Amino acid sequence: MKKPLSGYGSSHPNIAVIKYWGKADTINNMPSSRSISFPLTNFLTETVVEHSLEEDRFYLNGKMLPIGEKMGRAVEIFRKKSGDDRPVCIRSFSNFPHSCGLASSASGLAALVLALNDFYGLDMPEEELCIAARIGSGSAGRSISTGIHLFDGMSVERLPSWKEVRILSIILSGDCKKTGSTEGMIRTKETSNFYQERLARIERKIKAMVQYISQKDFDGFAHLTMRESNELHAILMETYPPIRYIRDDGFKVIEMCHEFNRDRTRVAYTFDAGPNPFLITLEQHLHAVEDFFKAYELVPCNY
Amino acid sequence: MKKPLSGYGSSHPNIAVIKYWGKADTINNMPSSRSISFPLTNFLTETVVEHSLEEDRFYLNGKMLPIGEKMGRAVEIFRKKSGDDRPVCIRSFSNFPHSCGLASSASGLAALVLALNDFYGLDMPEEELCIAARIGSGSAGRSISTGIHLFDGMSVERLPSWKEVRILSIILSGDCKKTGSTEGMIRTKETSNFYQERLARIERKIKAMVQYISQKDFDGFAHLTMRESNELHAILMETYPPIRYIRDDGFKVIEMCHEFNRDRTRVAYTFDAGPNPFLITLEQHLHAVEDFFKAYELVPCNY
Repeated sequence: MKKPLSGYGSSHPNIAVIKYWGKADTINNMPSSRSISFPLTNFLTETVVEHSLEEDRFYLNGKMLPIGEKMGRAVEIFRKKSGDDRPVCIRSFSNFPHSCGLASSASGLAALVLALNDFYGLDMPEEELCIAARIGSGSAGRSISTGIHLFDGMSVERLPSWKEVRILSIILSGDCKKTGSTEGMIRTKETSNFYQERLARIERKIKAMVQYISQKDFDGFAHLTMRESNELHAILMETYPPIRYIRDDGFKVIEMCHEFNRDRTRVAYTFDAGPNPFLITLEQHLHAVEDFFKAYELVPCNY
Repeated sequence: MKKPLSGYGSSHPNIAVIKYWGKADTINNMPSSRSISFPLTNFLTETVVEHSLEEDRFYLNGKMLPIGEKMGRAVEIFRKKSGDDRPVCIRSFSNFPHSCGLASSASGLAALVLALNDFYGLDMPEEELCIAARIGSGSAGRSISTGIHLFDGMSVERLPSWKEVRILSIILSGDCKKTGSTEGMIRTKETSNFYQERLARIERKIKAMVQYISQKDFDGFAHLTMRESNELHAILMETYPPIRYIRDDGFKVIEMCHEFNRDRTRVAYTFDAGPNPFLITLEQHLHAVEDFFKAYELVPCNY
């Protein structure tokens, strides 16, 4: 197989509506539960991998940064597999803010894995790419390809598309989070009294969510999405010491969503490990949502 | 029995370290679990009851207010019991802010019940007074007398005194809360997936807390107090729609407590259904606590 001089990969971040929080296996980053995600197709990471004359190098949007542990793990997998242990130069370009709960590490790792696969000419099957990405970032497997995904940590199942869905983000803060998700997940698993209770129930949620998405039942989908987000952040409050990602301004958005849904469910919110809410609605309600939340800067994420 | 022309009662609010949230019986205000409280002896409500020439009247700190449903229920109990159905005038005086999670309704109801008992000359046993107060406010039974109390909704058990304990409050906001505790408790019971799980575990917490207090084990006491507060507020986040009483500034106090306790546990926080934290420490650590939290106005609650 002819190797090109450079490898290229691109990926979108994703937002989970049923989230995984906690690892079954910390070393291999194996999630403790299945999760369901939507792609954020307006946000893009593109990565180019080439040989480096010196040591391994990493540039993010042109700025040289140290290669983190997560990226290093992904590179090692491909170096071993290819038998080519020469240093590499990785250049990534992202069009959205980092480390504030917009799943930048997922798309970063997915784009890197795709670029490495291309660079070393390995033509790995999708499942192996998912696993390689996941070892770097638990939710990166969901970003290897585009679509509504059910991810079990090993492979991705595509759910039926739902073209009417619109996802918006409200950037309340671009600050880096205080507690990283890996650290947070470990602390939750070790201390939260509700963690096992959540795990025991999550497969029922997964099944209900698959059904709502398949039937395009927005009402069921929206309620489950909001309750799932609340449950995650409740468990974070019960982690010891407690972790809080949603700030007063984020909770105000939650209250506004419930107010907006008073007569009819037209919007859902979900928060990841950060202060910034995602709003999920249908195309037909988009103008009403934009109008109601006009005090905020709404960032279109998937259209 | 000679009836005096006026009845007098006084009471302190209380702060629960094991909290009750949810009623087993909404009509009689029967709590769904036992709770443990400390008296806030610096805060005082004094109430005088007299006959009124016209209809029932209520004055709080000299200002005429409508007699609320809670007070009305307490008055009715005593009117029935005494057979004297003449209108009454109730004058209450309180030296601390209301409706912001400082348990004003507990001391208000307890002082009222004590004043009514005195006014009608009924000489009711303490258990009946507790029940009458509880029907007005679920946590008022804990304020009928002073002490560290274990309350089951019917009667109060006194726990051994712990004279070295110092309780401080930080008034972050005097605003009235958006969701009253009665409304919140009903919503939690109806919607929270963790509510039953909490109830199933609470007796174990009660037993552990009794032991910590009896043995003056501050380390165990402080950790359990903080985890109990966190659990309540986690369950509120999981109530649907979610309820949030702790604001960003309150969570900052939580983080400061964990920072302050880094080497040795010297302070505990607890929040009721409001934004204002209570700090619990020992006399020997009081200066260090005051020094560490010097950016805040610390209000001494029990000494």
